[in-house]
Amino acid sequence: MNVGGTAYRSLWTDPVDGSLRILDQTLLPHELGIRRLATPEEVAEAITAMRVRGAPLIGAAAAHGLALGLEREAGDHALEATRALLLATRPTAVNLRWALDEVTRAVRPLPPSERAAAAARVARRIADEDVARNRQLGEVGLELLRAAWEARGGRPLRILTHCNAGWLATVDLGTATAPLYLAHAAGIPLHVWVSETRPRNQGGALTAWELGQEGIPHTVVVDNACGHLMQRGEVDLCLVGTDRTTATGDVVNKIGTYLKALAARASGVPFYVAAPSPSIDWTLEAGSDVPIEERGGDEITHLRGRTAEGDDRVVRVVAPGSPVRNPAFDVTPAHLVTGLMTERGVAQASRAGLRALFPDEAP
Amino acid sequence: MNVGGTAYRSLWTDPVDGSLRILDQTLLPHELGIRRLATPEEVAEAITAMRVRGAPLIGAAAAHGLALGLEREAGDHALEATRALLLATRPTAVNLRWALDEVTRAVRPLPPSERAAAAARVARRIADEDVARNRQLGEVGLELLRAAWEARGGRPLRILTHCNAGWLATVDLGTATAPLYLAHAAGIPLHVWVSETRPRNQGGALTAWELGQEGIPHTVVVDNACGHLMQRGEVDLCLVGTDRTTATGDVVNKIGTYLKALAARASGVPFYVAAPSPSIDWTLEAGSDVPIEERGGDEITHLRGRTAEGDDRVVRVVAPGSPVRNPAFDVTPAHLVTGLMTERGVAQASRAGLRALFPDEAP
Repeated sequence: MNVGGTAYRSLWTDPVDGSLRILDQTLLPHELGIRRLATPEEVAEAITAMRVRGAPLIGAAAAHGLALGLEREAGDHALEATRALLLATRPTAVNLRWALDEVTRAVRPLPPSERAAAAARVARRIADEDVARNRQLGEVGLELLRAAWEARGGRPLRILTHCNAGWLATVDLGTATAPLYLAHAAGIPLHVWVSETRPRNQGGALTAWELGQEGIPHTVVVDNACGHLMQRGEVDLCLVGTDRTTATGDVVNKIGTYLKALAARASGVPFYVAAPSPSIDWTLEAGSDVPIEERGGDEITHLRGRTAEGDDRVVRVVAPGSPVRNPAFDVTPAHLVTGLMTERGVAQASRAGLRALFPDEAP
Repeated sequence: MNVGGTAYRSLWTDPVDGSLRILDQTLLPHELGIRRLATPEEVAEAITAMRVRGAPLIGAAAAHGLALGLEREAGDHALEATRALLLATRPTAVNLRWALDEVTRAVRPLPPSERAAAAARVARRIADEDVARNRQLGEVGLELLRAAWEARGGRPLRILTHCNAGWLATVDLGTATAPLYLAHAAGIPLHVWVSETRPRNQGGALTAWELGQEGIPHTVVVDNACGHLMQRGEVDLCLVGTDRTTATGDVVNKIGTYLKALAARASGVPFYVAAPSPSIDWTLEAGSDVPIEERGGDEITHLRGRTAEGDDRVVRVVAPGSPVRNPAFDVTPAHLVTGLMTERGVAQASRAGLRALFPDEAP
């Protein structure tokens, strides 16, 4: 998508030296910093530190990281060690395992001398397929948004989103944002409520920045305000992403998603989840079985931002000495989800609904 | 309550010059700053800027502000003008109007020469009665907490609170915290989940600081995490304050309270509101009739905190150029409230429940 009118992806391979380039998302919205990652260790650090984040992008980055590792050493042991290093970076999103499995499956039968090139091809394919899949998902969502807009009698459609399931969370276009970008391009007037998304503020810092760069009207609110907005009839539809969707339709997504879903249900607001197929974990039944990452407490006690003088500073905002706890995801039970937007259509959030769209993948 | 082992109130009259002294809460948790307020204009500024905040404390501060105004000029016109100045500072909490009415009713029949002294007496009485009322409410809550703790088989009672309904929000003891302080003193083991409370972080900055000073175990979480904690069975009871409770039991409180109440209901967690009688607005039926204050957007886009070097700095955390909206309160409908803790006992959150405890006040 566009940054200052120039088209970017969130990740690409340098055509000269084959290293990976990413937009360092910890610098946004204040700075557009491009970072070079030349080793799997650097890729792992970028994922752990959330320089790249978002379930689909984590998958694509890890695939590239595995390819970089195989360039260095391509034996079975190195393959397994690099795969394990990358898999351990974040425990919740399933795309990470999915993408590493795609690469591993492709290269394992090959002689070591051919593995690096094959892995790089698979990694590039994963990235390209992500974009194509998001576009398909976007077309599915576009029709849903068009109908909702027509039901509003042509007034702007008011959508609430949480965290960043935007192009920055994917290779391009985004999952939850793909329908928004296509609807905006199709002339459907939108207004997006962006929830700040504490503790890391991916809503206020990343989603708001994305939407601003594309010229989509939006307003940032604190997470606490989302119930109030729905209760007062100011939201027509919620649309969020997912880090892992179980085979029964439970949605594991950024902490706070569950509270928005509860509020949507209480106010009769449809609650949709953009769930491309690589985010579906066919091996798990219940959301409560998904490991919930607990991140460092400094994400809560301290905040990084920019001063009026243009300096980046970290400030403490919690009482010194008070303990903190920082679960990064929560589970929205399937019964609170109106529908799962996938690249094949909108599925009911249930085993039957998912199976109907994915008979080839569902167990 | 205690700060570094020394007992403080959040507001007091200087015995020498009669001016009002407050703890400037915008400096906490990093600094204990005492501010002198000598005129009603200074009191109004302190309320608007949230140097003093919390429904009961706003009422007590405004009463003192009116007394300071009458010292300067005590005619009917000045009385009305000062009352209007103070009433306009914050629109949502009902205690503000209640306290100004108490002073006005007492001084209006008096000759101007006697008004200032009478107003000062009423203001001091309002402050003292606040403390006494909180203690009564605390005793009511203590019995409820004791029963809940016994039902836990003696394991620590896990309570979730939102924002700051602590002693800093009142003259002393707090509303939602009064039962906690009394239970702690009675040897009941507690663990308090403190929700950060964006945008102004009164939970992480003030409630956590209060609890830390009193040695009560607690953990700060982001607002987004509260649903997850309840869903995972880690909360035994929610206990929050209120800025205005309607005659039918709807609770208007800090933005985000409603989301916690929804999550509590979904997980079967009792949701109690500490509602001393001055916070009950007998003239209003529905929470939706209460004016919801919209505060400045810079409370969302910018955060003040302390750097590692000990400097207070303000940093921007939202994408530049993105609009924001900042409603400061929301409405928790009565049907989500398990009970209203008052100084006379626990009332059902309904007209009948409130009338049963307050037959003398209910219309």
